[in-house]
Amino acid sequence: MLDQYLSWYDMALKALKYKIENFTTKPFSKIAICGMGGSGIVGDYLRVLASDRLNYPVTVIKDFNIPKWVDKETLVIGISYSGRTMETVSAVEKALRRGALIAVIASGGKLINLAKVKGLMYVKVDSGYVPRTSLPLLLYSALKIMKELNADIVSEPEIQESIDILKNYRSYLNYSLSLSSVIKDNVPIVITDPRYEPLCLRFKNEFNENSKIIAKCEIYPEWSHNDIVGYEGGVRNVKVILANPNDGSLYQKVFEGFMVPYLTSLGYEVCEVKLQGKCMLAKLIYGSLIAGLTSVLLAQRKGVDPLETRSIKLYKEYIKRVSTQFFTQH
Amino acid sequence: MLDQYLSWYDMALKALKYKIENFTTKPFSKIAICGMGGSGIVGDYLRVLASDRLNYPVTVIKDFNIPKWVDKETLVIGISYSGRTMETVSAVEKALRRGALIAVIASGGKLINLAKVKGLMYVKVDSGYVPRTSLPLLLYSALKIMKELNADIVSEPEIQESIDILKNYRSYLNYSLSLSSVIKDNVPIVITDPRYEPLCLRFKNEFNENSKIIAKCEIYPEWSHNDIVGYEGGVRNVKVILANPNDGSLYQKVFEGFMVPYLTSLGYEVCEVKLQGKCMLAKLIYGSLIAGLTSVLLAQRKGVDPLETRSIKLYKEYIKRVSTQFFTQH
Repeated sequence: MLDQYLSWYDMALKALKYKIENFTTKPFSKIAICGMGGSGIVGDYLRVLASDRLNYPVTVIKDFNIPKWVDKETLVIGISYSGRTMETVSAVEKALRRGALIAVIASGGKLINLAKVKGLMYVKVDSGYVPRTSLPLLLYSALKIMKELNADIVSEPEIQESIDILKNYRSYLNYSLSLSSVIKDNVPIVITDPRYEPLCLRFKNEFNENSKIIAKCEIYPEWSHNDIVGYEGGVRNVKVILANPNDGSLYQKVFEGFMVPYLTSLGYEVCEVKLQGKCMLAKLIYGSLIAGLTSVLLAQRKGVDPLETRSIKLYKEYIKRVSTQFFTQH
Repeated sequence: MLDQYLSWYDMALKALKYKIENFTTKPFSKIAICGMGGSGIVGDYLRVLASDRLNYPVTVIKDFNIPKWVDKETLVIGISYSGRTMETVSAVEKALRRGALIAVIASGGKLINLAKVKGLMYVKVDSGYVPRTSLPLLLYSALKIMKELNADIVSEPEIQESIDILKNYRSYLNYSLSLSSVIKDNVPIVITDPRYEPLCLRFKNEFNENSKIIAKCEIYPEWSHNDIVGYEGGVRNVKVILANPNDGSLYQKVFEGFMVPYLTSLGYEVCEVKLQGKCMLAKLIYGSLIAGLTSVLLAQRKGVDPLETRSIKLYKEYIKRVSTQFFTQH
């Protein structure tokens, strides 16, 4: 697994060269990104990156179903690394019936077949990776689709900075090793500000899948209106990972001036991950790589196989069997 | 505290009689709900209720800042029970400068003053409640504003059913007591499907604030693509609370046919809260009341004061001091 994370720089360069097949466009005023797990999280990155750039919201849908507002004026990007994710295929098929402008990103499977048959635009990414390690392939493909559709949410220099940051991957290994040695057998609680919410989710998902541990996400300022009280109940087997935006923002000021000293005073250990890079995309990519490396190194430390995700396999077998029956009956 | 939760039926009837002051309207094609904690969660309820009814998305903003897309074509509802929440006031002031159509809901404070001075529409709710117990006042007020603005997301019979369900509150006490006795000193993980996400958040926040414990939320189907693997790592001091939609949906089928037996086989205890009522609003209100009662009864069991939230008070003092300095400097 580690080698796949350490090849993100090459993956990013590869993704920049992908071609959008069947390119089509029409006006849209809403964007929905459909996907699950390590593919669906690309939608979360797009949502926060779009927040300060677009005149309409980007909504992430992690479900079989789509909201009523997905219609002819909506761009829907369906993302599934395998192209076979039941929920994503179902959501894209529904969006197709609503007349949405659709793009899909996958390495093959039913999604790519659907795109070919229906003439939908698509990017076919390289197969052979573990889905969650393929983040650069999926993310840079999605950014390219957005750009070509004039929903440009990152600039060329920002793309370049985010790729440059991946060059230093060797130096991130030691840092990730020390982070994993703090987590040990504890439950990580990952906290950041709303702009970096995808990083919280990413850290959690990577700890779940690679390290086989329970983890939890929190976003400040909402954190300080309810979750904060939970820490009063005494120190449990948890460690706080704080993704510090490291950008001179009010969020950083509160993290360093209140959150860290307060949690420390209650007896909690807080590990600050200071996000490197200048632009949001670079900070997101940096944090995501640290999450991947840390979770694999933690798996090694615990003696578990980061690759195998037995529970997800069982679920996928179950849902394949049951959803066919269910949709036939209803 | 318990008496405030047990008066939800009366609160709901009271809220139905509130008047919208300074009513104004203009066309809008986007909705943003701004608020934090027990006030901001009203936005989550509105978002899921709108999902199958409106032709545009409802976005919940729990932050000082607002996305670029909040503009003249956006309805912004700012909700803060006290009317003094720093983040909400900041978000509403920014939306005002963007020319958005604005409504505020509060019991007084800066938000109501702002509405009076600027001629914004507002609902002034009764003061004297603990903010998180005032949910019916805030929620039914927000639904009324939406209805009057032709963004109708619940019908009259649905409103009626949701209020009728509050009549049986005495019978919910025993159930909540048994639920609290299962949680004991464990960390609750609350799981449901995307339509009932606000209930997960509500349970978590109520456990945080009333019971002073850490809690965690998960939404199926995303849960089955990453979080599920974390449970393989052995049973920890957690209990799963499953908000079962109890509506014959595929979600319910998966919960009962896969999630419960699978988690049980791994050694986890799962408490199913079967959501009563027919419509979504009734199920949401029912689940929210169970969350409130359970969290207060758990506080009593643990011998902690459900009312006091010392950490939030410390945060509010800090942010008041620091944000003034910060915004003066930047």
